[in-house]
Amino acid sequence: MRRVQIAVIGYNKDSCTEAARKAAYKVGSEVAKAGAVLVCGGLGGVMEEACRGAKDNSGTTVGIIPENDASYANKYCDIVVCSTIGFARDFIVAGTADGIIAVGGGVGTRIELSAGYMLKKPMVAIKGSGGTADEYGGKYLDERKRVEIMMVASPKEAVRVLLEKIGKNNNAGLGHDNPPHT
Amino acid sequence: MRRVQIAVIGYNKDSCTEAARKAAYKVGSEVAKAGAVLVCGGLGGVMEEACRGAKDNSGTTVGIIPENDASYANKYCDIVVCSTIGFARDFIVAGTADGIIAVGGGVGTRIELSAGYMLKKPMVAIKGSGGTADEYGGKYLDERKRVEIMMVASPKEAVRVLLEKIGKNNNAGLGHDNPPHT
Amino acid sequence: MRRVQIAVIGYNKDSCTEAARKAAYKVGSEVAKAGAVLVCGGLGGVMEEACRGAKDNSGTTVGIIPENDASYANKYCDIVVCSTIGFARDFIVAGTADGIIAVGGGVGTRIELSAGYMLKKPMVAIKGSGGTADEYGGKYLDERKRVEIMMVASPKEAVRVLLEKIGKNNNAGLGHDNPPHT
Amino acid sequence: MRRVQIAVIGYNKDSCTEAARKAAYKVGSEVAKAGAVLVCGGLGGVMEEACRGAKDNSGTTVGIIPENDASYANKYCDIVVCSTIGFARDFIVAGTADGIIAVGGGVGTRIELSAGYMLKKPMVAIKGSGGTADEYGGKYLDERKRVEIMMVASPKEAVRVLLEKIGKNNNAGLGHDNPPHT
Repeated sequence: MRRVQIAVIGYNKDSCTEAARKAAYKVGSEVAKAGAVLVCGGLGGVMEEACRGAKDNSGTTVGIIPENDASYANKYCDIVVCSTIGFARDFIVAGTADGIIAVGGGVGTRIELSAGYMLKKPMVAIKGSGGTADEYGGKYLDERKRVEIMMVASPKEAVRVLLEKIGKNNNAGLGHDNPPHT
Repeated sequence: MRRVQIAVIGYNKDSCTEAARKAAYKVGSEVAKAGAVLVCGGLGGVMEEACRGAKDNSGTTVGIIPENDASYANKYCDIVVCSTIGFARDFIVAGTADGIIAVGGGVGTRIELSAGYMLKKPMVAIKGSGGTADEYGGKYLDERKRVEIMMVASPKEAVRVLLEKIGKNNNAGLGHDNPPHT
Repeated sequence: MRRVQIAVIGYNKDSCTEAARKAAYKVGSEVAKAGAVLVCGGLGGVMEEACRGAKDNSGTTVGIIPENDASYANKYCDIVVCSTIGFARDFIVAGTADGIIAVGGGVGTRIELSAGYMLKKPMVAIKGSGGTADEYGGKYLDERKRVEIMMVASPKEAVRVLLEKIGKNNNAGLGHDNPPHT
Repeated sequence: MRRVQIAVIGYNKDSCTEAARKAAYKVGSEVAKAGAVLVCGGLGGVMEEACRGAKDNSGTTVGIIPENDASYANKYCDIVVCSTIGFARDFIVAGTADGIIAVGGGVGTRIELSAGYMLKKPMVAIKGSGGTADEYGGKYLDERKRVEIMMVASPKEAVRVLLEKIGKNNNAGLGHDNPPHT
């Protein structure tokens, strides 16, 4: 039985704030404590802190990086997926997540939340973490209202709300939502 | 410290032979016994048997599937990467591998070995496993001779040869071989 | 000498407004009159109307679709690029553009503008066209301020402003901004 | 009405032979004379010569490159598609083609023919052009026998055979062969 996979997305290291780093570490810790796999874009800033938090709590971490070369990943990734496709890998991060947590974030975070929205993934944003999380929290990303990005008050609440939402989706007996490639 | 990631590639379930299934199971077992992470395309046939072999030996398995929906993966994948990009995900399988083992295989296996060749990954083919493995084993894929696909006699030898080659590459102090995305 | 390539992005047919359709048609017309190639996502709504406007003015149109099958493209595309990679093709639309014009738009438009921002493409949004164009016009997409999405009053101004900006970039003697794949 | 799109694939400039260059030029010329659009990977060697041949015969040329930056394309491309996804763009070249002509070629050509085979595209290889074309001509790429890579004697025959095959497919009333992305 596969474990739940939660993506943590947000600032890369060039623009990460101290507040976002702290929140990301806690989010990673909570994801690990809940027994979920932490998925991220594998680089610095929020991604690295979330991985570090997960590893400090015996979690499992997956980094999906743009490059061809695993050495670009942060050192807290247990598994490094070298996408080779550049920043279009943001779609893979969203596609791989059963749910998504945004901590601050710039334009890459916009893309990942948007991809998650297209795929109807449960998503939460940490209130006060800055950037895209604060801008998008509590909103739908277009008038189709496919799925709301829920604003949550803390890392702990983020994981709780997300797991509850993912559980409901699974109980609803969701089958293949997308056609296979043949 | 990240564990070595070995990709096992080969027939999907529609064309998998009994011989290839058996070889795949053993390859997965050996990958797990060696303490490496098993990476694959996440679907049936060789992919599924390799995952099953790894799980029976307490290994870790990663399936990188073409689809948006994790339920397409075989049930022995610990981690499912939903690439969302269709069969272009063959590049991700090759990019994510520190080394590649081919067991039989059709056209998808050609693509993965070819992508591995472009990325200069250590690669082996199991002798007698049929299809692409037997056709490409012992060969270079073009006149540039970037890396040879070594033919090996057994699953055990496959893992041994590959780990030795990967170890040598690491000792050679290989740094970033490809430019980062910025 | 390659012609300038301008991407027109915005609502797909399921959510396109009449105002956006009209604006898109005019944008396509102006792109063609200016002698530029029109690039788009190849589907309906703003994409189709922009192509129709361009064709009515003897322009050239390129549709870059998510699917494997050219028959999904709207009938005003001279050239259909079947990306095969699903909605990650939004990155290809942005990458292929020398400049981008947004007309209304939902979440896909967010992704394309965000990808354009990462690639530092000149971008404009048509004022009053709704959705993402109105939300993002006049803004930078994160605190790095890589490139502003300029708000413009009309299709004619959109093309004029964009061509001026593209011309300046070219005169600045920009060479390879990104490393090659080798 | 969209024109037929023919992909010409083969050696990049680092390994292109004089014979392949000549054949590629003729193939590009014949594609243009037949009124078809020439699609290619946009770089050097066979790609560049095919584009040059097409332009000398008033054809239209499309180059789909791995990079983010159009200046990597050869100068005979009318339209440059910057895929941004690296060599996974080989799938886009195959997906975009109504038919494919191989002239010599190394490992990239293997990938493009393999992708074309998965998508059941009509494909021909020029006899005596070397490399992958000579190796794969007259063959199926796996036991599923989805589509044969026909061996042809000359550039002229390549275009004739391909157009005939494409015409038959169209007359067979092929509709959407692949599910849409929604």
